[in-house]
Amino acid sequence: MTISHYHFQTASHIVSGAHSLELLGEKLELLGLSKLRSIFILTQPSIVSLGYADQIKTELAKKGIASEISTEIKPEPTEENIEDVFQTFLKGEHEAIIGIGGGSVLDAAKILAVLKTNDQPISDLVGTNLVKKRGVPTILIPTTSGTGSEVTPNAIVTFPEKELKIGMVSPYLLPDLVILDPALTLKLPKAITAATGMDAFTHALESYISNKANPFSDMFALESMRLISGSIQEAYHHGDNMTAREDMLVGAMYGGMALTSAGTAAVHAMAYPLGGKYKISHGVANSMLLPHVTAFNADHIKDRLEDIARVIGIEEKGSKHMLAEQVIRQIEEWTADLHIPQQLKAFGVSKEDVPALAEAASEVKRLMDNNPKPMYVSDIEQVYMKLLHV
Amino acid sequence: MTISHYHFQTASHIVSGAHSLELLGEKLELLGLSKLRSIFILTQPSIVSLGYADQIKTELAKKGIASEISTEIKPEPTEENIEDVFQTFLKGEHEAIIGIGGGSVLDAAKILAVLKTNDQPISDLVGTNLVKKRGVPTILIPTTSGTGSEVTPNAIVTFPEKELKIGMVSPYLLPDLVILDPALTLKLPKAITAATGMDAFTHALESYISNKANPFSDMFALESMRLISGSIQEAYHHGDNMTAREDMLVGAMYGGMALTSAGTAAVHAMAYPLGGKYKISHGVANSMLLPHVTAFNADHIKDRLEDIARVIGIEEKGSKHMLAEQVIRQIEEWTADLHIPQQLKAFGVSKEDVPALAEAASEVKRLMDNNPKPMYVSDIEQVYMKLLHV
Ligand SMILES: [Fe+2]
Ligand SMILES: [Fe+2]
Repeated sequence: MTISHYHFQTASHIVSGAHSLELLGEKLELLGLSKLRSIFILTQPSIVSLGYADQIKTELAKKGIASEISTEIKPEPTEENIEDVFQTFLKGEHEAIIGIGGGSVLDAAKILAVLKTNDQPISDLVGTNLVKKRGVPTILIPTTSGTGSEVTPNAIVTFPEKELKIGMVSPYLLPDLVILDPALTLKLPKAITAATGMDAFTHALESYISNKANPFSDMFALESMRLISGSIQEAYHHGDNMTAREDMLVGAMYGGMALTSAGTAAVHAMAYPLGGKYKISHGVANSMLLPHVTAFNADHIKDRLEDIARVIGIEEKGSKHMLAEQVIRQIEEWTADLHIPQQLKAFGVSKEDVPALAEAASEVKRLMDNNPKPMYVSDIEQVYMKLLHV
Repeated sequence: MTISHYHFQTASHIVSGAHSLELLGEKLELLGLSKLRSIFILTQPSIVSLGYADQIKTELAKKGIASEISTEIKPEPTEENIEDVFQTFLKGEHEAIIGIGGGSVLDAAKILAVLKTNDQPISDLVGTNLVKKRGVPTILIPTTSGTGSEVTPNAIVTFPEKELKIGMVSPYLLPDLVILDPALTLKLPKAITAATGMDAFTHALESYISNKANPFSDMFALESMRLISGSIQEAYHHGDNMTAREDMLVGAMYGGMALTSAGTAAVHAMAYPLGGKYKISHGVANSMLLPHVTAFNADHIKDRLEDIARVIGIEEKGSKHMLAEQVIRQIEEWTADLHIPQQLKAFGVSKEDVPALAEAASEVKRLMDNNPKPMYVSDIEQVYMKLLHV
């Protein structure tokens, strides 16, 4: 599992803690951004309703910076949607961008920033390392504890005509500043807390067992799993618990740091086809798949599962095999407790759909290659089948 | 010990692993730096002798980038020394800078990069957040496992006429790329392995007990102590052990990340006066002071010392008091095993010098304020006195 060279990328400036959004003005000053004329605030309707977009507008106004709030970005935005918002961004002559919202908003903010400086259409920039120039200054403020997009050099664009999602990957997608304010996540709906939280946990677990796992990703992955395992149920049942929300937010960010360095694996590869055709949310798909894929991998990752058992609070007694079992049971228990469906039937998937799903998952080679145990199409089919039995 | 807001800054791009220096060209490409005309290579004579400066020159030449090697920077460089080297840098019309060497070289490289863009003398830029503009692209390649300078937003300048060292602190001092190649450290002399290694351990330990300790710094500090405690003796006695060297290098970097977020405390405050007048190297001074300051702090940091005991491999049995004792003994054992002096006599310090030393240390308020137990001048004197008894 060790490799000789390993890489780490992240946002260079991060501030965290309850109500740290109040530090925005101070941080703009520190980063030489307080003299800008105008900043584009990209967000989503729920965040505007909660008053956070206006709070940012007010903070900016105090520094004499004009701003414009946009909620035009749709969940899992298409190329066309992002290009449309880009026109609004251009028209406003903004010099920087603040993305505040879930993963889709943050991804879109990252893309807008490089569109502004690169003078190329999105379709030319998707793929790995095709962005040529640093974007305009970007500040990312996550309001879910999930994707870790705030610290990853990736952004996903949907191309509906090709039935494809393609990642844009570039060091230039990393923001200049990240604000992790758990107060912004206190009102997150339960179902979103559950699905995004399990997505974050999956990032950490898959990074830890990835063939590209390394000393950087291991540290972040273990700490991410420790934080999320200790707080996900509390954050779900008592959403106003600031400490639990903070642990989730920091844990999700560490998950993003881990996956940036080590990548995700078969769970993510198998989740994508469920998102496309059956519209199963990414976090829900991951959460359903995680115990079954982990069971499939178990005999190849015994030592790693022992480490995972330790950080998620499972008492270290019994054989490695027993610890592995307990890790898998724990994930299933979370899924049940968080009211995440554990079967595909509810989403209109039937046994006949499995071969096509398995074929599609096996084609996500970039992620399947990270999986510690080789997974053939027949193996993938068997795992999907487990989600079709009651 | 918890605070509500906490901050983290680091280099946004890091590559690590044996012989990762070979990735320099590829990384320049990725970061948009492969079209530069000329890069200044700041280093030190020992690194030139080992052939690493030429290796970089060759890598750059492959990309068609001219370069100039300078070894003019002195250890603990003065304002004048840095300004002199800056003239060489300017004359060469270089567009970026690579610093490869120990902490002094890396600090100087960071300063040259911002001198180039800020058009102000060093004396105007030292202090906190006085640098106004981002510097030219900077790549840092540490060849000791000590300061963690490659990931800190700090650089130290000596002002001999004022008998002062002043830190320049700015987010603009963070480099664009860090290369952690343990192969570069295999020939590090034993005494330097020892002193810089103990400096790195002190960064982690002091960050972990700092009043500004937080969830970011805690993770880095614990992992730093785990890595360094597991490798420092091996790296000292068998310098060609690549794994031990790699753990030291990554551990020292994590120490730099921890101190960036949480700061160091009384050990560092007390080490500075020993460096100035008595020329005791920073790592040696820290190493001598660490067990005694830890003993002084012990009753205020019982839980933290228990965590430290765990990560440095002390068996978790016995009372907290006993664990604290064992941590202190372990540090003393390292110091002895690494042949670091444990007494001040060898350096010409006598009892009569203690009041002035204590006075000077107490004036390093920025660090003393981080110490978990308030330290009065009389306390400081008592700790220095312990280093004068055989
Ligand atoms: Fe995910
Ligand atoms: Fe130090």
